[in-house]
Amino acid sequence: MARFFTSDNASGVCPEVMNALVAANIGHTGAYGNDAMTHEAVDMIKKAVGKPAEVFFVYNGTAANTLACKAVLRSIDSIICPDSAHIVTNEVGAPVNATGSRMITVTSTHGKITPEQIRKASQDESWWGMHATRPRLVSISQSTEWGTVYSLNELADIKATCTELGMLLHVDGCRIYNAVVALDCSLTEMCEHIDILSLGGTKNGLMFGEALVFFNTEAADGFLHLRKQGLQLHSKMRFISAQFKALFTDELWKKNASQANRMMNLLVEGLSECPDIELVCPVQTNQAFFSIPTDFAVQLQAVKDFYQNGPQPDVYRMVTSFDTTEEDVSFFVREVIALNEQWRKV
Amino acid sequence: MARFFTSDNASGVCPEVMNALVAANIGHTGAYGNDAMTHEAVDMIKKAVGKPAEVFFVYNGTAANTLACKAVLRSIDSIICPDSAHIVTNEVGAPVNATGSRMITVTSTHGKITPEQIRKASQDESWWGMHATRPRLVSISQSTEWGTVYSLNELADIKATCTELGMLLHVDGCRIYNAVVALDCSLTEMCEHIDILSLGGTKNGLMFGEALVFFNTEAADGFLHLRKQGLQLHSKMRFISAQFKALFTDELWKKNASQANRMMNLLVEGLSECPDIELVCPVQTNQAFFSIPTDFAVQLQAVKDFYQNGPQPDVYRMVTSFDTTEEDVSFFVREVIALNEQWRKV
Amino acid sequence: MARFFTSDNASGVCPEVMNALVAANIGHTGAYGNDAMTHEAVDMIKKAVGKPAEVFFVYNGTAANTLACKAVLRSIDSIICPDSAHIVTNEVGAPVNATGSRMITVTSTHGKITPEQIRKASQDESWWGMHATRPRLVSISQSTEWGTVYSLNELADIKATCTELGMLLHVDGCRIYNAVVALDCSLTEMCEHIDILSLGGTKNGLMFGEALVFFNTEAADGFLHLRKQGLQLHSKMRFISAQFKALFTDELWKKNASQANRMMNLLVEGLSECPDIELVCPVQTNQAFFSIPTDFAVQLQAVKDFYQNGPQPDVYRMVTSFDTTEEDVSFFVREVIALNEQWRKV
Amino acid sequence: MARFFTSDNASGVCPEVMNALVAANIGHTGAYGNDAMTHEAVDMIKKAVGKPAEVFFVYNGTAANTLACKAVLRSIDSIICPDSAHIVTNEVGAPVNATGSRMITVTSTHGKITPEQIRKASQDESWWGMHATRPRLVSISQSTEWGTVYSLNELADIKATCTELGMLLHVDGCRIYNAVVALDCSLTEMCEHIDILSLGGTKNGLMFGEALVFFNTEAADGFLHLRKQGLQLHSKMRFISAQFKALFTDELWKKNASQANRMMNLLVEGLSECPDIELVCPVQTNQAFFSIPTDFAVQLQAVKDFYQNGPQPDVYRMVTSFDTTEEDVSFFVREVIALNEQWRKV
Repeated sequence: MARFFTSDNASGVCPEVMNALVAANIGHTGAYGNDAMTHEAVDMIKKAVGKPAEVFFVYNGTAANTLACKAVLRSIDSIICPDSAHIVTNEVGAPVNATGSRMITVTSTHGKITPEQIRKASQDESWWGMHATRPRLVSISQSTEWGTVYSLNELADIKATCTELGMLLHVDGCRIYNAVVALDCSLTEMCEHIDILSLGGTKNGLMFGEALVFFNTEAADGFLHLRKQGLQLHSKMRFISAQFKALFTDELWKKNASQANRMMNLLVEGLSECPDIELVCPVQTNQAFFSIPTDFAVQLQAVKDFYQNGPQPDVYRMVTSFDTTEEDVSFFVREVIALNEQWRKV
Repeated sequence: MARFFTSDNASGVCPEVMNALVAANIGHTGAYGNDAMTHEAVDMIKKAVGKPAEVFFVYNGTAANTLACKAVLRSIDSIICPDSAHIVTNEVGAPVNATGSRMITVTSTHGKITPEQIRKASQDESWWGMHATRPRLVSISQSTEWGTVYSLNELADIKATCTELGMLLHVDGCRIYNAVVALDCSLTEMCEHIDILSLGGTKNGLMFGEALVFFNTEAADGFLHLRKQGLQLHSKMRFISAQFKALFTDELWKKNASQANRMMNLLVEGLSECPDIELVCPVQTNQAFFSIPTDFAVQLQAVKDFYQNGPQPDVYRMVTSFDTTEEDVSFFVREVIALNEQWRKV
Repeated sequence: MARFFTSDNASGVCPEVMNALVAANIGHTGAYGNDAMTHEAVDMIKKAVGKPAEVFFVYNGTAANTLACKAVLRSIDSIICPDSAHIVTNEVGAPVNATGSRMITVTSTHGKITPEQIRKASQDESWWGMHATRPRLVSISQSTEWGTVYSLNELADIKATCTELGMLLHVDGCRIYNAVVALDCSLTEMCEHIDILSLGGTKNGLMFGEALVFFNTEAADGFLHLRKQGLQLHSKMRFISAQFKALFTDELWKKNASQANRMMNLLVEGLSECPDIELVCPVQTNQAFFSIPTDFAVQLQAVKDFYQNGPQPDVYRMVTSFDTTEEDVSFFVREVIALNEQWRKV
Repeated sequence: MARFFTSDNASGVCPEVMNALVAANIGHTGAYGNDAMTHEAVDMIKKAVGKPAEVFFVYNGTAANTLACKAVLRSIDSIICPDSAHIVTNEVGAPVNATGSRMITVTSTHGKITPEQIRKASQDESWWGMHATRPRLVSISQSTEWGTVYSLNELADIKATCTELGMLLHVDGCRIYNAVVALDCSLTEMCEHIDILSLGGTKNGLMFGEALVFFNTEAADGFLHLRKQGLQLHSKMRFISAQFKALFTDELWKKNASQANRMMNLLVEGLSECPDIELVCPVQTNQAFFSIPTDFAVQLQAVKDFYQNGPQPDVYRMVTSFDTTEEDVSFFVREVIALNEQWRKV
């Protein structure tokens, strides 16, 4: 029963969620979300985010991000986002494919961008008038692809800039729970400045399913049709809803995210004793990025696997999950410290 | 624990599949299909279809159909299909939205179309030369949306026509298992004349997941990218694979489909005693279509729910499922016979 | 210097328009419509249509139709139109390709559809709820592809139905001038009930260029960007504008359309003496459709060419143009009458 | 009769081309390219490029570029191009909108990119496997948006890199004639290493019209349909063809391009005497880029207009055209020298 540091989607399903799936498997219900469990799950999420919202379940995070864009953009509009964004680097261009619009990427610092960068990107694009697109959406990730977190003030500032420039703010929240735990705030506070949220599920212990939350409820116009056309309407919806009900019962999401973040703290602390493993980015959630000599990294991966972080060599990512244990971490750290000593001698 | 006749996706998950999901929930595995269980499931399907194929898992049937089209069509190409096809009436135009190409619909008889109709549709479109599209794909459903089944000879004839006209043959097989049972043939025989198959899952007892099977393996070029871009790459893939492994172990798919078909036989036989319920279409699988006076139908729906079959009034569809029991059917028939006697008196 | 009856786009450029092109070729001007001539042309069109409008020039009629659809439709919306519409049969699916939405075709009578057909199509599609599209645009042609004309009352009724159902009304007016002449009304009266108009140019004697006229000015939001993205922004715009200025000077459009319609009257009258040439559709403008035995038609085509009207054999279309002369018609009629006599003898 | 330095599309039509348009306006011809003049024009271009090719006329340069991409790319493929490319900055994302694929931009040096940059961009994208696109097309401009020119050797090297990486090479040749003149080579030599060429027209004295030339003739499969769907099929095609015939008669294109390049030489030489006007980029064709203090630039623009070159302040572009005269240049230079002296005193 191995556990690695490759990604939080290498994990399976957390026990509470699996139990909920088994319990939901009784008799017939309405399909396509026309069932009591779906209504309950939606209501629990609405309550947790603490302001008026429209909530829809989809299959995965790429779909949530893509349909968020498609819900609000015309083909002549553009998205401003960090060059590190998942929607840029890891979705085969799905948001652009779906919308026919354009992405304007901004150089991020550890996954984050600033209001000034957003303003400049918007103004530069708009300078071209009818020969270029209309920037209409900013998309950021919370926590980011580099594991960092925007503070509540930073989010407020970005939202203010969006409003000033006539743009909406989308947040890719596939790991938003880890960010909430890192900031020690409530989900309500976190959502205060967001227009559209891709609310994670799979990376927090679900088998499948993410939610799309429209705080800008006008943006949800026609979304039922868009979800079906976007290949994201699950017929046996109760099995997504049951999982989200479990996730929002007794703040299971917080328990899962806390465990992942805590294990990462332990891991980073442990590895700090290794002279040849250097952090390349501040660690705030359940992801850490290290510079490791390639030949040494190979030895570590044999202990517990993890991935090189993109085409640039020597930078590696480790991710903890809801099911990472103290034993997993201490075993890995112990082994790695020993390997490092050995490796330095050669 | 109610069970209805609304659809086979009102059912939950069949026990063997749910057990497989629970059993698969151990430790970490590679994500995105890079795990042993996925390889095993793919191999089992390849063996069952009995000829060289590329197999990919996706989330749902609309996605399988849509990506099948996108895999092989350019925007200047067109799809010839029955006007009753799910891809025409029930997918918000997803295949056309994804491909940018055009659908040419042909008037079906009980859900089926003929080689002659396909040839005429192709020739009529081609008459316009560069001002119209190039017909390149025929898409039919087996079993059809009216529950009917193409015979193996009919499939062979359609495929021959496709080949003659430079077209590929796609089959929407969300209920192909019911068709195999109806024809009492093997899945191998059924697949002999198909180029691309949407292989059902959800309507045969799965929680989620369908497979796309390319017998024309050239058509699968780049499909890994297309699946991701098409919002259909599941990160925790093992949970789709585990279900398909269960479905193809000891021909569970046949057991499930046989039960559904058999229950429909019983149902139709039982309802044949009701003078005000008339079949409007031959029954071959697990769907039946009846003409019922509206006010009488409402009374029946209160016993066990079922749906009006489209905008035209007075035609209703009943569907049985892997979990429909003889008790379900006999109870319903009994009640309906009584209601009919009563209704005729009024 | 042959002239045929194949189409009004077999003609060249009418003399007033060619003179205007030559005259416009002086010095440098602002590009992309930023020139005085474009402003003047737009103002002349606005004045002629007689109500507030936004006017944009594009290259051709398919583009005007396609961008009209793209301006107002999301991918989840649909277009209701006659099955005979140019956008259905002759544009390689361009409007659907551009919008990602769906066309719902209605069986036309001589190219025309009724409010009742529109209402039924809309209600049938909407019955499917989130599984189908939202009908949002009706597109008709005036004059139609069969040369017929909607009366002003018929237009008003269709518009009222659109309003009732939450739809906009687009008119493909590549031959609207011929319809205005046929109804002996003003362009203002003709436009009273239209939301978006593809205003013809090429078929009325222009070298190139059509106009898109938004009476629903909200629909024009972002259209400058959409036109550029839609490959329709001409850099040397003055050369489209100069042509439209000529067309709207002293109602040149009316002179051209009147000549074409009048020549068609003569032609139909003349051919009425031929027992083997039968009208299949009332003639109201500059197009006529005849049933002619194929082998006889071939003889006629050798006199002056014209085309078979679609894949169905034996139906032929003849079209007159601004430059068709009485001599053209009388020569053709004379020859055809003689040929018919001869042909009957064989 | 003012002439500026804003762009070569501020010019009108060169006399030979206008004469050809007038001469072509006789009688009826086949529409949509089915006419003798179109066949002749295509043959002249084929002869001039000197190797087997398929040639198609379209309306404008954005269309040529966009349909070039659409002809060869699937939505899962990507385009590698300079960040300065017209398709990136000035087409509202049209190529991406049309293909659904992705653009990977590479930082250019004065508009040019290198084989090494192309290789790295391709390898970086491919590193992500199925989570990213397949780089399949390199698109460069010749001459570039900064007026520079790739040498024949540089083109050969880029093509070799494309071949090595499984990519095709597209060249945006809206000003290819100016590049041919700059390199003092033949059009045949220039085309030797190109797969698909957007062959300019409008910027070399045409009223409207560009050509798309497929040297990779497989890439032209279905292009007749694609052109119609892409809104680029002109019905009265003879009027594009007549212009191209004129352009390729007695190498009119070379005469026009030579005049433009020569006038730019004069202009740059003249302005070199102004201490406050500095070249920011080598000048090789008919475009030059200067750093000029903003308040001084405003005074120059009042003499003869020209544009700021993008959102970055202080950089301005001047463009000469086929109709720029020595008098235009000497007048401007004289005035500017005087203004500069005056401006330095303040």
